[in-house]
Amino acid sequence: MSSKFKIGMIQMKIGSNPNKNIDNAIKKIRKASTLGAKIICLPELFLYPYFCQEENHKNFNLAETIPGPTSKILGELCKELKINLLCPIFEKKVAGLYHNSCFVLNEEGKMVGNYRKMHIPDDPQFYEKFYFTPGDLGFKSFKTKYCNVGTLICWDQWFPEAARATCLKGADILFYPTAIGWHPKEKKQYGKSQLQSWITMQRSHAIANGVYVVAVNRIGLEKNKKNKLEFWGNSIIFDPSGNIVKQASSNKEEVIICEIDLKKIEFARQHWPFLRDRRIDHYKDLLKNPSNG
Amino acid sequence: MSSKFKIGMIQMKIGSNPNKNIDNAIKKIRKASTLGAKIICLPELFLYPYFCQEENHKNFNLAETIPGPTSKILGELCKELKINLLCPIFEKKVAGLYHNSCFVLNEEGKMVGNYRKMHIPDDPQFYEKFYFTPGDLGFKSFKTKYCNVGTLICWDQWFPEAARATCLKGADILFYPTAIGWHPKEKKQYGKSQLQSWITMQRSHAIANGVYVVAVNRIGLEKNKKNKLEFWGNSIIFDPSGNIVKQASSNKEEVIICEIDLKKIEFARQHWPFLRDRRIDHYKDLLKNPSNG
Repeated sequence: MSSKFKIGMIQMKIGSNPNKNIDNAIKKIRKASTLGAKIICLPELFLYPYFCQEENHKNFNLAETIPGPTSKILGELCKELKINLLCPIFEKKVAGLYHNSCFVLNEEGKMVGNYRKMHIPDDPQFYEKFYFTPGDLGFKSFKTKYCNVGTLICWDQWFPEAARATCLKGADILFYPTAIGWHPKEKKQYGKSQLQSWITMQRSHAIANGVYVVAVNRIGLEKNKKNKLEFWGNSIIFDPSGNIVKQASSNKEEVIICEIDLKKIEFARQHWPFLRDRRIDHYKDLLKNPSNG
Repeated sequence: MSSKFKIGMIQMKIGSNPNKNIDNAIKKIRKASTLGAKIICLPELFLYPYFCQEENHKNFNLAETIPGPTSKILGELCKELKINLLCPIFEKKVAGLYHNSCFVLNEEGKMVGNYRKMHIPDDPQFYEKFYFTPGDLGFKSFKTKYCNVGTLICWDQWFPEAARATCLKGADILFYPTAIGWHPKEKKQYGKSQLQSWITMQRSHAIANGVYVVAVNRIGLEKNKKNKLEFWGNSIIFDPSGNIVKQASSNKEEVIICEIDLKKIEFARQHWPFLRDRRIDHYKDLLKNPSNG
């Protein structure tokens, strides 16, 4: 096997009709495949508008099982195109128990595995704790023909523990399907700093772990009766030394193709040998919450 | 107590004579105190040229006990000026066992505690594993009159575990006395990227933990018979939202004074509530090394 291959990042605008969204996704996956991508990643919850802007019981109807109808459609596509695909959807486990998940399909169209978002946010207009139970499968790295694929989702980006644990399982690339944006009323004052913080955290995971880091976000203004969010795009990939390789726009749909070279992982880790020096004999306190002030 | 107070960061050039280095440090500490600083931090191993550029048994003679002669001199200074001081020196524990340490003195001149560098590097011209046993005291936060002071040292900067564990112990500010610089022959190709990576990691600790982060570095070209290193200064402080508050030059001695507002910690943590969502039930793998490739 060569150490080099291409990945594809699908930065999409997402509308109200799931059928149209999956058609748009498929069109862009075909394009990425034509351009040579062998592992392709979709944005978080790519089938639906970001419904977590409100707490509405009707939205539970959007959930489906894994495997289910979406994995069937996309599995056939993977087999046809001979690609690996990261598919982030709203998962129904059983009645009343739902997850924000990302399953991985291989080039035979088979399910390699599923990851359930471990860290669940709850902020004004990001009411995810209403919908999603925190993941019960732990941190995951999945073997594909080209490399080990680490799957994390959006809010996980802010937790160094998640990046580290996934890398310790062998991941060569950390993929973060994402749905992040600005509250329009905050954008002027805090927008630039928020975006820079988001980029900083991902860059830090690449550096600290000597690993590729990829975030794939949606774009566009999404409104409901009361609220709106402007998703900020900026889908981005860092190499294992923490350099930005490619970065998308904040407001355009894009299919980003990027060459991976697995040899860069070993180079980064030999020159910045952090894995060598971890104090695993002294990290027990990481399993606790802070003590009282 | 007010939530506001000032800290001082002493960015120094360090020569071959420890007596002159301590005199230079004391002069700058007096200046920082005059400007209102109540907690002052010196650079890593501030008494000596960066002797780890070579493996030379003679250098063990530089080590001293804690408490010892340096803590006596600086303790009297702290009492006179009514300041708290972070003092990073080469510690002799017993014959044959040495640490890269940082002790903390309070405004009565008393020893609040000692931290022994937990992560020890070993790179060409940074032969620290030859001199220093990895710390045996764990991660530390020390109570002072103004706030809880987290003590970490240089290479610890690259480990998210160290920042997190120190914050979980209650630290309001993470101080990183530092000795980092460029290999002159690498500077042109990698210098900018290395400096940016160093800044990124510290910024990420501020964001991920909602805490002030302070790094205090030396400056200047230091040569021995075979080698040289150019210490890159850039002493820096981030607020708990990850914004740079002050950043020093790469090549000048500076006494940097900065106002801390502890209320910013609570603000940052309420708006980016990462501590709320940590999955302490699933972090056990952080206590392991990676499994085989």
